[in-house]
Amino acid sequence: MTQLLAARKGEITKAMARIADREGVEPEFVRRGVAAGTIVIPANINHQALDPQGIGKGLRTKVNANIGTSPRFPDTGQELLKLRAALEAGADTVMDLSTGGDLNALRRQTLAESRVPVGTVPIYQAAVEALENRDSIVALTADGLFEIIERQAADGVDFVTVHCGVTLESVERLRRQGRVTDVVSRGGCFIVGWMLHHGLDNPLYKEFDRLLDICLRYDVTLSLGDGLRPGCLADATDRAQLQELIILGELVDRARDLGVQVMVEGPGHVPLDQVAANVALQKSLCREAPFYVLGPLVTDVAPGYDHIVSAIGGAIAATAGADFLCYVTPAEHLGLPTVEDVREGIIAARIAGHAADIVKGIRGAREWDLTMAQARKALDWDRQLSLAIDPEKARRLREERNPAGIRECTMCGEFCAMRLVSDFLGTTKGSC
Amino acid sequence: MTQLLAARKGEITKAMARIADREGVEPEFVRRGVAAGTIVIPANINHQALDPQGIGKGLRTKVNANIGTSPRFPDTGQELLKLRAALEAGADTVMDLSTGGDLNALRRQTLAESRVPVGTVPIYQAAVEALENRDSIVALTADGLFEIIERQAADGVDFVTVHCGVTLESVERLRRQGRVTDVVSRGGCFIVGWMLHHGLDNPLYKEFDRLLDICLRYDVTLSLGDGLRPGCLADATDRAQLQELIILGELVDRARDLGVQVMVEGPGHVPLDQVAANVALQKSLCREAPFYVLGPLVTDVAPGYDHIVSAIGGAIAATAGADFLCYVTPAEHLGLPTVEDVREGIIAARIAGHAADIVKGIRGAREWDLTMAQARKALDWDRQLSLAIDPEKARRLREERNPAGIRECTMCGEFCAMRLVSDFLGTTKGSC
Repeated sequence: MTQLLAARKGEITKAMARIADREGVEPEFVRRGVAAGTIVIPANINHQALDPQGIGKGLRTKVNANIGTSPRFPDTGQELLKLRAALEAGADTVMDLSTGGDLNALRRQTLAESRVPVGTVPIYQAAVEALENRDSIVALTADGLFEIIERQAADGVDFVTVHCGVTLESVERLRRQGRVTDVVSRGGCFIVGWMLHHGLDNPLYKEFDRLLDICLRYDVTLSLGDGLRPGCLADATDRAQLQELIILGELVDRARDLGVQVMVEGPGHVPLDQVAANVALQKSLCREAPFYVLGPLVTDVAPGYDHIVSAIGGAIAATAGADFLCYVTPAEHLGLPTVEDVREGIIAARIAGHAADIVKGIRGAREWDLTMAQARKALDWDRQLSLAIDPEKARRLREERNPAGIRECTMCGEFCAMRLVSDFLGTTKGSC
Repeated sequence: MTQLLAARKGEITKAMARIADREGVEPEFVRRGVAAGTIVIPANINHQALDPQGIGKGLRTKVNANIGTSPRFPDTGQELLKLRAALEAGADTVMDLSTGGDLNALRRQTLAESRVPVGTVPIYQAAVEALENRDSIVALTADGLFEIIERQAADGVDFVTVHCGVTLESVERLRRQGRVTDVVSRGGCFIVGWMLHHGLDNPLYKEFDRLLDICLRYDVTLSLGDGLRPGCLADATDRAQLQELIILGELVDRARDLGVQVMVEGPGHVPLDQVAANVALQKSLCREAPFYVLGPLVTDVAPGYDHIVSAIGGAIAATAGADFLCYVTPAEHLGLPTVEDVREGIIAARIAGHAADIVKGIRGAREWDLTMAQARKALDWDRQLSLAIDPEKARRLREERNPAGIRECTMCGEFCAMRLVSDFLGTTKGSC
């Protein structure tokens, strides 16, 4: 039985209780959210190592880290290092997006090592195998695709990105729309290519019930992918994107009706003043299904800094109601991220989520900042550094920039503002 | 005659013409903005090296970089390296905030090397000299302070931060308010300490006309500092902050009446959902004087990443109407920034400003992104890298992560989404 079906029957599962405990909310709050579909718990019955996470309304904004090999960099060892770095840096979920090397082995290893939910994009493996075995991505068959989804589900994958809204209808809207960067989602591209080659509709849409059947058996959470997401600001919030979102909204209903947990993915490249509107649209069209956003990137011109660009968009999106942020690393648009890029990407996304959680009134968020402020006022450096979102980096910068170990930071030195006011006003709470 | 007095007489100065040319607007648009006080041109008549910049409504959002020695790190050579890095990274202005070593020499060297406007906080030098010559900051006299302001103005400083709104009235409001971090502005602290010690009001407020007289003679632009800005989220938008802002609004009127250019500084640490409100308040209370913000920082918990925290707040502030962003570096709250920190801080602030300029409809902003998107679609790597906000870093990351020099980025490799769709849809504009 899926978490959704259990919740509907009034049952508080172990996963719900664990999530309630971690988030500081009532178990019944979690159960109600899952039953309503505003919270998902991606928890495959076969993922043994899992410590469950909840994603959705009223819970802390979550952060996903993508890892995975590519054909040019098939080294699974390197990706496992990234996995460990991601977990250490505080990723709430990881997605294995591998397209090179031994895909089954890396996925199984990732699942074995991950206490956090693991997601995949099964069309990647399907495309790779079609290319390997039959020399062409378009040689992929519907049966082959569903076999891979079943294989990944049986392995314990907790959530799958499936581009079910890339249909003959939405692609026709795309053609009429005209775009600068057309389709930038890899999975979306494979499907558009396949559909155009065969003159057939997307199997993930046409045979959606077959997908639901697999999800039901393993409690895999659907993450309805936005294959037609904008790849640049000029393409944002256009008719193709919205047509796909409407279709995804219909599929949310169908998944929920059968008891399958479902969330929806969102853009992408979006001008700052359209970010909140995109969240409002998704929430309305998809009946408040959890919203999983990539970025949004609020400018196209900053390769090397897209983790910062995404932190801006992500903070605004999460404040507007997005529930789940996919990290973007400094290497985005340039190449495969390094271990250090993974770390930077996760912290940037966590900052964005936390800035939003403060405003959303998520339990513990505002308190964290207040405790830090009190530690600053008291010039309690140990406490400041251990409270930092990345204690290791904060400590390293502090030591590098203050080799003498003086009490004030070296920015002000003996002119430390906080010390001066403590001396004069005597109003300090944590005196120094 | 100041730029403001010239503008009021209908004169389009050389500086106005230069700014209009650079921003792609009509000279008359700049003149009107300067006359109305919604645009300032910090251009001291004695700053020989200056290529003037405009700051304010309808112009590109500008970015300031702070440099300067501290008592523990008095090495002026290091600060000059930061100055050059700041100019190279695209800072629109620099502020010399030195408090260690030979302050006069470093300031003069900075002015000689800076084609961009240079700002200072004269109370720093006043405090340092009072400490050196009379063993105490509170030994500072009003005459001593104005002597230093005059000295800096005569040297060619284009704008000065002066905390004129820290008065007996606003400090009393601060005392009644109660705060977690009291006063975190260094200049604000010196003044609060001085006032409490002497039982006298702030000379920068009481003798504001003396300040205006100096500004008039050299056309120094006032940057009315927010000495009572919040130092943590819990203190944001409180009665002390607003009391000071009301006083600054009155001083804007007085400066403008006499023909002195004036802008206003703003917070600080502000929860994300209060950022736009802070901008609206400043614009209303200060009759649309250009707004110069530090951050805002939307969380307190991310030392080591405060450039990202500020980019989030800065992008939202600038979208809401802030005109001028003071950079924050990764070293903020930890120590003095390195040259690399300066670079990272400037690029983060430029990203924030640009994301806002796209939305504000600033000329050229949206076009930059469109050109980048077209270069991406065409897989034109040379063009992508040269269009990047930091071409050097983009090129370095690209080369490190793609040693074989293949055409696609190594993220997708042979599964490059853009190439697949180009092949199938044939809709690409820049074919590959």
